[in-house]
Amino acid sequence: MAEDLSKKGMEVRTALFGEKAARAGHEYLSEFDPGFADFLNDQVFGAVWGRPGLPLKTRSLITMAALLALGRAPELKIHMRGALNLGITRDEIRELIIHLSQYSGVPTAVEAMRVYREVTEPKK
Amino acid sequence: MAEDLSKKGMEVRTALFGEKAARAGHEYLSEFDPGFADFLNDQVFGAVWGRPGLPLKTRSLITMAALLALGRAPELKIHMRGALNLGITRDEIRELIIHLSQYSGVPTAVEAMRVYREVTEPKK
Amino acid sequence: MAEDLSKKGMEVRTALFGEKAARAGHEYLSEFDPGFADFLNDQVFGAVWGRPGLPLKTRSLITMAALLALGRAPELKIHMRGALNLGITRDEIRELIIHLSQYSGVPTAVEAMRVYREVTEPKK
Amino acid sequence: MAEDLSKKGMEVRTALFGEKAARAGHEYLSEFDPGFADFLNDQVFGAVWGRPGLPLKTRSLITMAALLALGRAPELKIHMRGALNLGITRDEIRELIIHLSQYSGVPTAVEAMRVYREVTEPKK
Amino acid sequence: MAEDLSKKGMEVRTALFGEKAARAGHEYLSEFDPGFADFLNDQVFGAVWGRPGLPLKTRSLITMAALLALGRAPELKIHMRGALNLGITRDEIRELIIHLSQYSGVPTAVEAMRVYREVTEPKK
Amino acid sequence: MAEDLSKKGMEVRTALFGEKAARAGHEYLSEFDPGFADFLNDQVFGAVWGRPGLPLKTRSLITMAALLALGRAPELKIHMRGALNLGITRDEIRELIIHLSQYSGVPTAVEAMRVYREVTEPKK
Repeated sequence: MAEDLSKKGMEVRTALFGEKAARAGHEYLSEFDPGFADFLNDQVFGAVWGRPGLPLKTRSLITMAALLALGRAPELKIHMRGALNLGITRDEIRELIIHLSQYSGVPTAVEAMRVYREVTEPKK
Repeated sequence: MAEDLSKKGMEVRTALFGEKAARAGHEYLSEFDPGFADFLNDQVFGAVWGRPGLPLKTRSLITMAALLALGRAPELKIHMRGALNLGITRDEIRELIIHLSQYSGVPTAVEAMRVYREVTEPKK
Repeated sequence: MAEDLSKKGMEVRTALFGEKAARAGHEYLSEFDPGFADFLNDQVFGAVWGRPGLPLKTRSLITMAALLALGRAPELKIHMRGALNLGITRDEIRELIIHLSQYSGVPTAVEAMRVYREVTEPKK
Repeated sequence: MAEDLSKKGMEVRTALFGEKAARAGHEYLSEFDPGFADFLNDQVFGAVWGRPGLPLKTRSLITMAALLALGRAPELKIHMRGALNLGITRDEIRELIIHLSQYSGVPTAVEAMRVYREVTEPKK
Repeated sequence: MAEDLSKKGMEVRTALFGEKAARAGHEYLSEFDPGFADFLNDQVFGAVWGRPGLPLKTRSLITMAALLALGRAPELKIHMRGALNLGITRDEIRELIIHLSQYSGVPTAVEAMRVYREVTEPKK
Repeated sequence: MAEDLSKKGMEVRTALFGEKAARAGHEYLSEFDPGFADFLNDQVFGAVWGRPGLPLKTRSLITMAALLALGRAPELKIHMRGALNLGITRDEIRELIIHLSQYSGVPTAVEAMRVYREVTEPKK
C-alpha cells in the first residue's frame, strides 16, 4: 500500500509538472531529506491529491487560490504551470486572480499577475 | 449600466445566500455605509462574481479556499452556506478542507472543520 | 531616564484609553509578567508612541490600519476606542475601514466593521 | 458618472505616481486584463481613494501601514514613492516603520527599512 | 508499518494530551472524515512528531511558536496544555510569549497571554 | 542600567552572528535611525533575548519557528546562521523545517528549505 501511494504520488506529479520536472522535484527534495521527499510524494501528492472526492483540476484551482491568498509566489508559479498542464486555461487563471483580489487584497492579485506574466510569456 | 451591475450583484447574492439573507446582508452593510454596501453589491458581487470567465461554483470554491487559508472563519461560514446553496456537496467541501491542510497548515483545516460542523449540523 | 519613559508611557496610555483603563491594562499585564508590563509601558507606549516624529492621531490611524490588515480584532477594538478618545471621528474610522478593504481584502474590512459597530453602538 | 470615476482615478494616480508612471501602470495592467485595469483605476483609485472623508496623505499613510504589516514589499515600494510625491516626509515614513515594528513584528519593519533605503538612496 | 505509525501517533498524542483527550480528539476528527483523522494520527503525530531528530519538548516549543505567530488561538490552547503535560513549565511558556512579541508583533503575544491565562487559571 | 542592556545586547548578537556581523548589523540599522538601532540592540537583544528564563538555543529555535511560519525568508536566513553559531546542528534545523510543514503549510517549509540550502551550501 505504501508502494501504491508512492506510485500514485508520482502519477499526480507527472500530470501536473511533466515526468522530467516531477522526477527532478523529487530528487531536489531528497537531497534535503529523503523522508520528507517521500512524505510529500506519498502523502501530499499520493494520498491527498489522489483522493477521489475532487477532480485534479479543482484541486489545482483551490491550491492556486490558497497560494495566492498567502502570497507564496514561488509555489504559485509552480502550480500555475501545473494548472496549464492539466488543461486549465490562461483565461481561467486570469479570472481566478481578478476574483481573489477582493478576498485577499489587490496587492496579492497584482503579485499573482506578475507570476502569471512570467509563466505565460514566450521565452526569449 | 450602474443599474445593471446593481441588479446583477443582487442576483449573484440571491443565488448564494437566498433572497432574504441577500437583502438582509445589504441592509446591514448599508447601515454602516451606503456607498460601501453598493460597492460590495455592484462591484464585488455584480462586476467580479458576475464576470463570465468562471462559473459560480468555481468562484465559490476558490473563495472558500482563500478564506480558509487566511483563517477568516466568519466569512468562511457565510460562503460555506453559499456553496451548499449553489449545489456544491458536503463531500466536496470536506475534500477542499482536507486538501488545503497541506497548503495553509493543519490548524487552518481544523478551524474550517469546526465551521463545517456548524454549517452542516442539524439545528436543534 | 527609565522613570521618564515610564511616566511618558502612562501619559500616552491615558490619552488613548483614559486613566482608569490605562491603569487596569497595566495591572492586567503585570499579573502575567511585571517585566513584560514595564516593557510595553516604557518601550512601546513611552519610547515608541512618545517619539516626536508623528502626532498621536497619526500613530493611532496607522496602528488601526496594521491591526485591521492582520485581522487582530480584540486589539483593533481597544485601539478604535483609543482613536475616538484622541478625537479621531467615527467618519474617519469608517473611511479607514472602507479604504483598506482593497489592500487587505474585503473580509478584513467586514470584520473591522463588526468591531466598529460594537465600539460605536449605544450601550443598552 | 463612470467617466467621472475614470478621470478621478487617473487624477489620484497622477498625484501619487506622476503622470508618466500613472499611465504606464494603467497600460501594464491593461495588457493583463482591461476590465481589471479599469476596476483598479475607477473603483480603487477613483471611487475609494477619491472619497472625501480622508485626505490623500492619510490614505497614503494607512496604505503603507497595511502593506508593511502584510509584508508586501513590491507594493510598499510603489506606495512609499507615492507618499514622497504627496509631500509626506522621509522622517514621517521612518517613524511609521519604527512604530509598526511593535504591531506586526520587527522583521516586517526591517523589511520595510530595506524598501525605504532603495526608495531614498541617490541613484548611481 | 502503517500499524506502527498508528500506534506511534497515539503514543505521542497520549504524552501530549493524556489518553482520554487523545482518544476523544481522534473520534472527533473521525466523525468529520476517517481518512483525515488517520492522516493526522499516523502522519502528523506518528511520522512527523515521532521522528527521532528532535525531542518532544522541542517539538512542542516550536509548535507553540508557529501557532502564536500565526494567531491560531484555539490550536495554541491545545498545544499549551500539551506543553504543560510534557513538563514544559509555565515560566518557559511565559518566556516564549514575551520573546515572540518582537517577532510576530505585540498583539500576537497579548492574544497568547489570554490563552495562557485560560490554560493556567484554577478552575472555578 | 541602560549601559548594561547595551552591553548585554551586543553580547547576545556576538554569540549569534559573530563580532564582525553584529557590529555591521548595528551600523546598518544606525544609518536608518540611531534610536531604532539602540532599541533593537538594548531592548530586543539585551532585554528580551537576555532574560534568564530560556537558554539562547531555545530562543533561537522558537525565533526560527516564528520566522518560518510567517514566511520571512531574509530574517530566517540571518537566524539560521545564528542558530548554527550557537551550536544548533543542521539536523535539528532540518527537523524544525519538516515538523512545521504541518503547522504553517508545506509551502512555508519548502521556502525554508531553500534558505537552509543557501546557508549550508559550501561557498564556491
